[in-house]
Amino acid sequence: MRIRIKAQHIDQVNQHLRNAYLCSTQPSVSPRTVVAPQPTPAIIDKGESSRYWVDPTNHMRLPKSLAAALYQTQNTQSKRSIGNMEKPSFQPKKVLILSKLTRYEFEKKVNKGCTDEQLASILKKRGSDYHGLLAKHKIHHSYLNTLQQELENAGIESRLVRRFGYTQDAVDWADAVFSAGGDGTFLMASSKVRTKQKPVIGINTDPQGSEGYMCLMRKLPEDNLAGALKKLFSGNFEWLYRQRIRITVTGDDGISDAIELHDQQLNRDPATTRWTDNPRSPAREMNIEECMSLSPPVKKRMISESKEVDIPIEKETVELPVLALNEVFVGESLSSRVSYYEIGLNDEQMLKQKSSGITICTGTGSTSWHFNINKLTEQCVQDLMKIVAEHCNLPQIPHTDKNAVSEICTKFNQQLIFDPDRRQLAFSVRDPIFNATFPPTDPRGFADKIRIKSRGYDAHLVIDGGISYRFNDGSEAVMEVRDEDNLRTVVFR
Amino acid sequence: MRIRIKAQHIDQVNQHLRNAYLCSTQPSVSPRTVVAPQPTPAIIDKGESSRYWVDPTNHMRLPKSLAAALYQTQNTQSKRSIGNMEKPSFQPKKVLILSKLTRYEFEKKVNKGCTDEQLASILKKRGSDYHGLLAKHKIHHSYLNTLQQELENAGIESRLVRRFGYTQDAVDWADAVFSAGGDGTFLMASSKVRTKQKPVIGINTDPQGSEGYMCLMRKLPEDNLAGALKKLFSGNFEWLYRQRIRITVTGDDGISDAIELHDQQLNRDPATTRWTDNPRSPAREMNIEECMSLSPPVKKRMISESKEVDIPIEKETVELPVLALNEVFVGESLSSRVSYYEIGLNDEQMLKQKSSGITICTGTGSTSWHFNINKLTEQCVQDLMKIVAEHCNLPQIPHTDKNAVSEICTKFNQQLIFDPDRRQLAFSVRDPIFNATFPPTDPRGFADKIRIKSRGYDAHLVIDGGISYRFNDGSEAVMEVRDEDNLRTVVFR
Repeated sequence: MRIRIKAQHIDQVNQHLRNAYLCSTQPSVSPRTVVAPQPTPAIIDKGESSRYWVDPTNHMRLPKSLAAALYQTQNTQSKRSIGNMEKPSFQPKKVLILSKLTRYEFEKKVNKGCTDEQLASILKKRGSDYHGLLAKHKIHHSYLNTLQQELENAGIESRLVRRFGYTQDAVDWADAVFSAGGDGTFLMASSKVRTKQKPVIGINTDPQGSEGYMCLMRKLPEDNLAGALKKLFSGNFEWLYRQRIRITVTGDDGISDAIELHDQQLNRDPATTRWTDNPRSPAREMNIEECMSLSPPVKKRMISESKEVDIPIEKETVELPVLALNEVFVGESLSSRVSYYEIGLNDEQMLKQKSSGITICTGTGSTSWHFNINKLTEQCVQDLMKIVAEHCNLPQIPHTDKNAVSEICTKFNQQLIFDPDRRQLAFSVRDPIFNATFPPTDPRGFADKIRIKSRGYDAHLVIDGGISYRFNDGSEAVMEVRDEDNLRTVVFR
Repeated sequence: MRIRIKAQHIDQVNQHLRNAYLCSTQPSVSPRTVVAPQPTPAIIDKGESSRYWVDPTNHMRLPKSLAAALYQTQNTQSKRSIGNMEKPSFQPKKVLILSKLTRYEFEKKVNKGCTDEQLASILKKRGSDYHGLLAKHKIHHSYLNTLQQELENAGIESRLVRRFGYTQDAVDWADAVFSAGGDGTFLMASSKVRTKQKPVIGINTDPQGSEGYMCLMRKLPEDNLAGALKKLFSGNFEWLYRQRIRITVTGDDGISDAIELHDQQLNRDPATTRWTDNPRSPAREMNIEECMSLSPPVKKRMISESKEVDIPIEKETVELPVLALNEVFVGESLSSRVSYYEIGLNDEQMLKQKSSGITICTGTGSTSWHFNINKLTEQCVQDLMKIVAEHCNLPQIPHTDKNAVSEICTKFNQQLIFDPDRRQLAFSVRDPIFNATFPPTDPRGFADKIRIKSRGYDAHLVIDGGISYRFNDGSEAVMEVRDEDNLRTVVFR
């Protein structure tokens, strides 16, 4: 596909990228962006053409009701703010590169002692392609080499680490952090950078497989990397500040060690073994390293009155060492279990809630899980328009007009997305349970500060889908956005 | 509260119950049912009174948009079918009683060796009330005694078991099964009764705390139990048949042991230790018993062509020993993780999907998780009506009229619910992820047969939120409804 892009689409794609850079306070902006209003008629039957947008890189089509929200149109871009800007200069002395562990590297690690032939057949049996993994592994390392070479040419000292080596000490050593991977690696890099003096810059090393929403070059092929870095070093860019979520937990016994879910994601052993001492579990090895790699939480002792007991209980208040860039999930660890908690918006009274958990997101995360929880589909909009037409006796409501349904769906879904620099949090209650004991509350909304008191017994706080802390009955969390917690990153003019 | 009911509401409640019995193919019918259209004006401000329904037992109020769907009104009841009926006679010789483990019993088990005073302070620290647990424990056992006494008076031999003793042998021994607990205990009882010759009858032993949707007396106080049982033995009732889901799994290595989630629900140790050999974990003890208590799956050897490989792989096809009465959840075990699978409706082509997992439910389950995933709130309906009004330039669309919004919301939500005897499955995709690689599909719909192929690495099939089987990459499940799998239960005339 990369060859096809270079051969046929490269000018078009570059044009898209230039446009994309201009509006990239919106994390979901991608090279696809600007083609949203211009579907390729060739592959779409006329009747439907106006409802679909076609990805120029793979010719997949997506209803505009989603494309317009996820891959911003120029129209909506122009309305978006560009965030706080300042005269830029990028002259770091020391750069830390966080590289993802490629799936190939991981499989070699898990299947220690296997020959490549044996590994190939193991993967084949699982429906994975050994040669595909190897090819992606090589592309990734080619990006890494280019990056390291360009840094050296610019006289910048660099260190390369994997997740397990991405320690607070390593972060403190560097003036800037590069992430080499996809958006997941960018989120991981962001999670340990607490000062906005230290920029984080994402390099998407798998443009064919990853959107690279938060990455410098989005889906641009490797050939453009050297040029992009030169542009960066010459100050030809703009700073972008993304709001993040600070989490403070008060509990009977502070908080547990952090659990890395990303690495388990690659791990074939069930993640549910993550607490065990099973020496055969690579997850365990990784978690030991991971837990060590997280700086100890900042602890403040305090005495707080608990509502349940008439004697004061000594509780510990802990500020988590990581900040959330996308969202925080609060709920039971197991998907099939009901989450029980109390929630308070700003300084309002706490309300009891039962649901499949709750997500609290930033503008950056508003195109991610938050969007998927709340978006309406055309199926749902059409059903509702039909009911409105019948109930209000308004036959002129065009519930059979697919374009009208699609446009209305688009407007609703776009309202779910907000700017990454907006100093507010959005919450989404998943599958809320309402009954006479748990009266309905709005399942989504905004707040400056959100407090959650756990009533769970195997509940967790999960930050950016990657780092998990136990959060059980008796614990309380406060989530808020502060300017000093902004993440500083780079967009091109 | 029970006293208040007896003093002031008992006639009214009995009237409600008689009505409820008449329409109880709808699992959500409860004594509250028939008051839905008659809110108590006393506690509601006039402007809103027509939008709210008030629970007569605790005076909590619920918007009609939910009450009408969850607590069927007479109006909607009359539209509902009563299921297949036959001339009833209930003359069992041997009855098995499945009793829930009360929270009190569980805490005693977990905190072995604690005095009642020590247990009280442990519970207090967690915000739980020792005396409350003890009171509920005593009420539960009072129900059990009455039930056993009445069975003896009727010359029926009975055996009392807890979950751990609820083995296939015990079920095979009995002519009928009584569940003593809430709806969770009823689901557990149902799960091991495969023949529709063997009725399952639910006794709600916590009418104040549990809805008892599927139970014989719903929320009726204990005083009515003896009378209800006499009514039953005298044949003054009707049979009700509920459709259930049969699950057949094909995988490289069959399926794992079943994991009991219900018992973990009470367990203070993290459920994520359930695979460990930690002797201090009561969950472990319970799971050993539980795994033993499930009969081995029915295995059929077969050879199937796998799409991913060019050589045939020997796979094992297994029919799960339990049937789902509410729903089957398929997805990653951890809430914060994306689920990846392929789905095929009936005999259509398989489609790849990414989501937070999928539920497949019966009509009985259509008021449960399925409803909570798909229901719209008035907030959402109002937003959408406003957009339709603006987009179509139809100012007469009453998006500011709370009653109209509520009624339209009600109509939409009621369409989600279907009859327990309908021979179809409904699926709901949770938080579906759509992009150019994963084009949108309808997030909900009906099918006679649903096939799911796992692409997960810590995925599970969870049956009625209680029993979990590993379901990882390479495994395939077929879910279908068959008349011979019906659950036979009882409703009163």
